[in-house]
Parts: sequence; structure tokens; C-alpha cells
Amino acid sequence: MTTTAIAYATSSPTTPFERIEIERRELGPKDVLIDIQFAGICHSDIHTARGEWGEVNYPLVPGHEIAGVVREVGSAVGKYAPGDHAGVGCFVDSCGECEQCRDHHEQFCTGNETLRGTVWTYDGTGRDGQPTHGGYSTSIVVNEDYVCRIPDEIPLDQAAPLLCAGITMYSPLRRWGAGPGTKVAIIGMGGLGHMGVQIAAAMGAEVHVISQTRSKEEDARRFGATALHATSEPGALKKLRGTFDLMISTISDTTDLGSYLRALKPRGVLANVGLPEHGFEMHLGPLVNGSRVLAGSQIGGIKETQEMLDFCATHGLAAQVEVIGGEDITAAYDRVVGSEVRYRYVIDTSTF
Amino acid sequence: MTTTAIAYATSSPTTPFERIEIERRELGPKDVLIDIQFAGICHSDIHTARGEWGEVNYPLVPGHEIAGVVREVGSAVGKYAPGDHAGVGCFVDSCGECEQCRDHHEQFCTGNETLRGTVWTYDGTGRDGQPTHGGYSTSIVVNEDYVCRIPDEIPLDQAAPLLCAGITMYSPLRRWGAGPGTKVAIIGMGGLGHMGVQIAAAMGAEVHVISQTRSKEEDARRFGATALHATSEPGALKKLRGTFDLMISTISDTTDLGSYLRALKPRGVLANVGLPEHGFEMHLGPLVNGSRVLAGSQIGGIKETQEMLDFCATHGLAAQVEVIGGEDITAAYDRVVGSEVRYRYVIDTSTF
Repeated sequence: MTTTAIAYATSSPTTPFERIEIERRELGPKDVLIDIQFAGICHSDIHTARGEWGEVNYPLVPGHEIAGVVREVGSAVGKYAPGDHAGVGCFVDSCGECEQCRDHHEQFCTGNETLRGTVWTYDGTGRDGQPTHGGYSTSIVVNEDYVCRIPDEIPLDQAAPLLCAGITMYSPLRRWGAGPGTKVAIIGMGGLGHMGVQIAAAMGAEVHVISQTRSKEEDARRFGATALHATSEPGALKKLRGTFDLMISTISDTTDLGSYLRALKPRGVLANVGLPEHGFEMHLGPLVNGSRVLAGSQIGGIKETQEMLDFCATHGLAAQVEVIGGEDITAAYDRVVGSEVRYRYVIDTSTF
Repeated sequence: MTTTAIAYATSSPTTPFERIEIERRELGPKDVLIDIQFAGICHSDIHTARGEWGEVNYPLVPGHEIAGVVREVGSAVGKYAPGDHAGVGCFVDSCGECEQCRDHHEQFCTGNETLRGTVWTYDGTGRDGQPTHGGYSTSIVVNEDYVCRIPDEIPLDQAAPLLCAGITMYSPLRRWGAGPGTKVAIIGMGGLGHMGVQIAAAMGAEVHVISQTRSKEEDARRFGATALHATSEPGALKKLRGTFDLMISTISDTTDLGSYLRALKPRGVLANVGLPEHGFEMHLGPLVNGSRVLAGSQIGGIKETQEMLDFCATHGLAAQVEVIGGEDITAAYDRVVGSEVRYRYVIDTSTF
């Protein structure tokens, strides 16, 4: 038996979100039916909904920062029981057999005979050939292997953004060794950055924020930063030459990339989690002279996402959110683009 | 008492090399006087000599791939004795106190009160304020902490190029985990690349060479490569999508950089050891989507250089060289630029 869910969808790059009904698939043996309580609004929801990242299957129900409560489980489900707090992130399936899946990087699944690759939570195609719909809805059905446990300590509204923003920051901070004795810069303190500051500080690093202005300085310190550097102040980046072991850039503006690379120590790493639309002029000098690293980073696998959720619970970390209703989604998109949200909008599905 | 050495020097970006006399400093307590037997010709010698990397102090005696025999040691030298085989690479001094020196990356020395940073083997300025002169000479005086021991198993002419070409390849192969179960591509098989193939193969990796043509295919296999891919063959790079864990680029041409990045597996690393003169159009997409890495790499510290020499001795590796005399240097430069050498020119100082 399928489950009817109420959802908010957009039907073109320019139309407002509207309340619709969607059907969730009948529970398979390994499936979990989750009553979604909160869904975060991620900037990539907006890029996708507005068609900025290529063609989209409308109607589109975005949302890959999903937090809820398990309502029902399939006959072979072993990890979850009704009542458990559960989260779903950017993908809901993968082949499980390729090198990337075996290495717990299911977001990079290269596929097998039955599945072509990672199945994204929305605007994807499931094993059943049906389009996937995301978290702006009252329920979702997901194979238990692609569900994370949300520790009870983290309120569900503040937990939702961890499923994308949290893991997006946690993964490069872990990979590149943020910890005691390291100096870490977080470039841009929005939805991603405000989690990055908290996580890097909890890992024991000395954290600096690089922001356009000083407007978020107090918040930065509250999240655990030692200092904020405002790029609008002349010479701010020049003063930072050779300072950081690791910088995570959450912004799409590549204008200052050369200056950021020079702000790294030798052997330092600049990891980008933002995806600029356009190319830019790059010089290899700052990389080669100093053995520096320009890395990209894209979310994380299920195992690492669970590790991140447990880490956040242990250290008392969560997203700072503004809770909105279904009717507020369209207006919220504009405010996210205008950097007005502090620091993540989370949709309360009880308003649907 | 200073030591008079015969050297080959150039006095402008365009003049031929000429035989001159230079003075090596009096032996300090920690100094080693080395009778140079062979000096490799590195492409960066040419860039420097021709003024392509900025202003140069002429007369210039290049050479930072130095192999010889210890003639005399200072009163406090503990590591070397007369008759020992010794090598000197790209630098001859550093502050010894900064974070980089303490971490054994003396090539990135940021200096202290008495020394401003790494002292390069030639076209640098020593602690005594005097210009440094490189290995195209019959002797050199170097603090023992900046001298490496050349294992007796490696003939000195074949050992000389290891001091730059060898460590330049070894360091990124080690840092980025070349080994059993990994697929490694070496882009360009010249002086650097032919060492990279041998070292990566000895580390246990499956090694592929990416070259313009198939002219070096037989050599590539002899050095330990499994396959050679010729970029002049249409679609060659496209076929390699998602193939490599690690690629080391020894070339300065960045035209195909996007294709190289796409030839990496997710989380794969492209390390550049060549230094292109010009900038290029870069897109972050292939880095972010797939958490890939674009790294630079610049030689290695003394500790790692010694490790590389010992590794080469253990595995029977050395450079394939063409030995030339002092009068051949000027002509050899043109042949290096024309990629005619197989695979490194080494100057025999007994011809001086």
C-alpha cells in the first residue's frame, strides 16, 4: 500500500511553491517510512528549483535535509523501529557494489547492472523508475541503509540541516585533519559556514572566519571562532599570508581565490564546497610553490554522516534555524539568496 | 682556507656557458667539502639561466642535482667522513627553527632572525651574504644537515638526478598514497616522469603513462608501466574517465587539465610538479563533484630525500642518463627544451 503525503512543489523555474499530494512507495522489506517533521532549505534546492543547474523534472519537491520520526518499518529492517528519530540527506539509494559504495562514499556510486549510480533524494530516478521527491513533504520511504539515526539530544528542527550542511563541512574538516594545533579558516558564514565553525572548533582547531563584513562577528565568536577577518577591509587577506593549515570555502565567488591560496601555510589545503557557476583564471604557482592543495568536497557517505551526527550530539552542536511554514517557502528562497537567513530556514511540515 | 673550484657559468640569458673559477667557503665546523663528480641538468636550471623565472645574479653556475665524494669534513661533522658518497639537492641551508624546518620541510623555510628562508643551491644568498653557486663545478661546501648520503649501490652519474627529479616525484607519490591497489598515471615521461614511473611501480601501484605519442611506449614498460596512453590519439583521455587514484603531471601545458581531472576517480588527486608560465581557465565542477584534489608539489625535505635515495637503492632504481662534458652544456639546454634527451643529461665534472 502506498502512502499519500502532502508536499510543496514548484512546477517551473519561476512559479511559487504549491501544496500538492504525492504518493510514497509501498514499504519493501528493507524500507523505513518516516514521518517528516522538518526539512531544511539548502541553497542547492534553489539552484535546482530555478533550473540553474540544468534541466529539472517538474513538479519538483526539493529537500535533502530531512528530520523526522519512524512510523513503520519493512519486514527485514534491523536498524530502526517506530518512534526512532531518523534523518535523510542528499541521496536515498546507490548500487552498494562499486568501489565507491564499498568504501562508504555512496554519493560517488558509479553503478552496477541494476542501478546507474547514486539516486538523489529529489529530481532523481529510483530503482522503480519513478522520479524521487524530497523532504518538503509529510513523509518519505527510504531503504534503511540510506537513513541516519538522529541522536535524541538534537532537536529535530536543528538536526535537519546537519544532513547536508553538517556533513558538507564535517567531511573536509576530517579528511584534511582539522584538530588541535591546526589553524582553520571558514570562508563565508552562512548555512554551511556556521556549521563549519562549530564543528572545526569542536575538533579542537583554532577557527577563523573570513566574511565580507563584520556583521556576523559576534555570532562567529559564539560559534567558537577566535577571529573574524572582513574582506571589505583593505589588506585583510594580505595580512593572513601563510597563516592557515586548512581553509574551507563555502562561497561561489572565486575572485579572491589566489589570495586565499596564499593565506595557506606550505602544504596547506583550500577545500571548496561551493560550486561557482563560472570558470576563473587560475595560476598553479601558489599550489606548486609550497605544495599546496586545492580540493573540492561534496557531502559525505552514510557512515560519515552518522559519525557527524554522533559528533554533533557529543559536542552539543546543531544548526541555528528559523522555522517557517509551507506557505513561506517561496519568499524564503529570495531571502536565502539575499543572505538574510540566520542561518538556515527549516520548514515545519505540521503547517502543510 | 677557501677552495678553488672549476665551474661552468653563463653571464646572461643568452650567452653560452663558459669555464670559470669560483671560490668555495672555508670549511666551518659543520661543513662538508664534496668533490662533485656529476651534476644533472634540470629544466629549472634552464628557466633560471635564461631569466624566464625572474631576475638572476650572473655569472650563474646552475646545478642542483649533485653527486660526489666527500673530500674533507669540519671539526663537528658527525654524519660524513672522507670517501663517502654524498648528494646535494635544491637547497643548502634553512633556519632550522621555523614550523616548516621542524616538520622536515626545509624547502618551505619561513626563516628566523638570522636567515630569511631557504637558501637555494644556486642563485641564492648564503648566511655569509655571498651568492650561492650550484653543481656545474668541481666542488661544493655544504652544512652536513643539507647533505644526503648516496647509497653505494647507485652509480653516482645515475644518482645525481635523484636529488631533484627523484624527490620531486617521490614526495607526491608518498603523500598521496601510491601503493598496491592504486592506479597511478604519470603525465609526461621526461626527466621527472621516467623517475615517477619507476618509483610508483616500485611502490606497488599500477602505473600508466600519458604521453603525446607512442614513441616512449617501450621505455615506459621497461620502467614498470602497465600502459601508455597517447594524447595525440582522438578520445584517448575520454576513455580514461574515472580511472586513476592519483595522477602526477610533469608537464607545463594546462590545456587538458579538465580532462585529466575527469580521469580521476572520485576523491582522486592530480598533483602538479611542473610550473606553467601562464594562468588558465579553471572550473571547480570536476573538483567539487567527486571531492577531487588539485595539488602542487615542490621537491621535498632532506629527511624525505634521504628516504627516497634509500628507497631507490633498495629497489634498484636510478635515472637513465646521458653523460656529457662541460663544453656540451649550452647545446644540451636546447636538446632538453626539445625533449630530445633520454632521460637526463648529467655533466661529468672530470671534463672541466
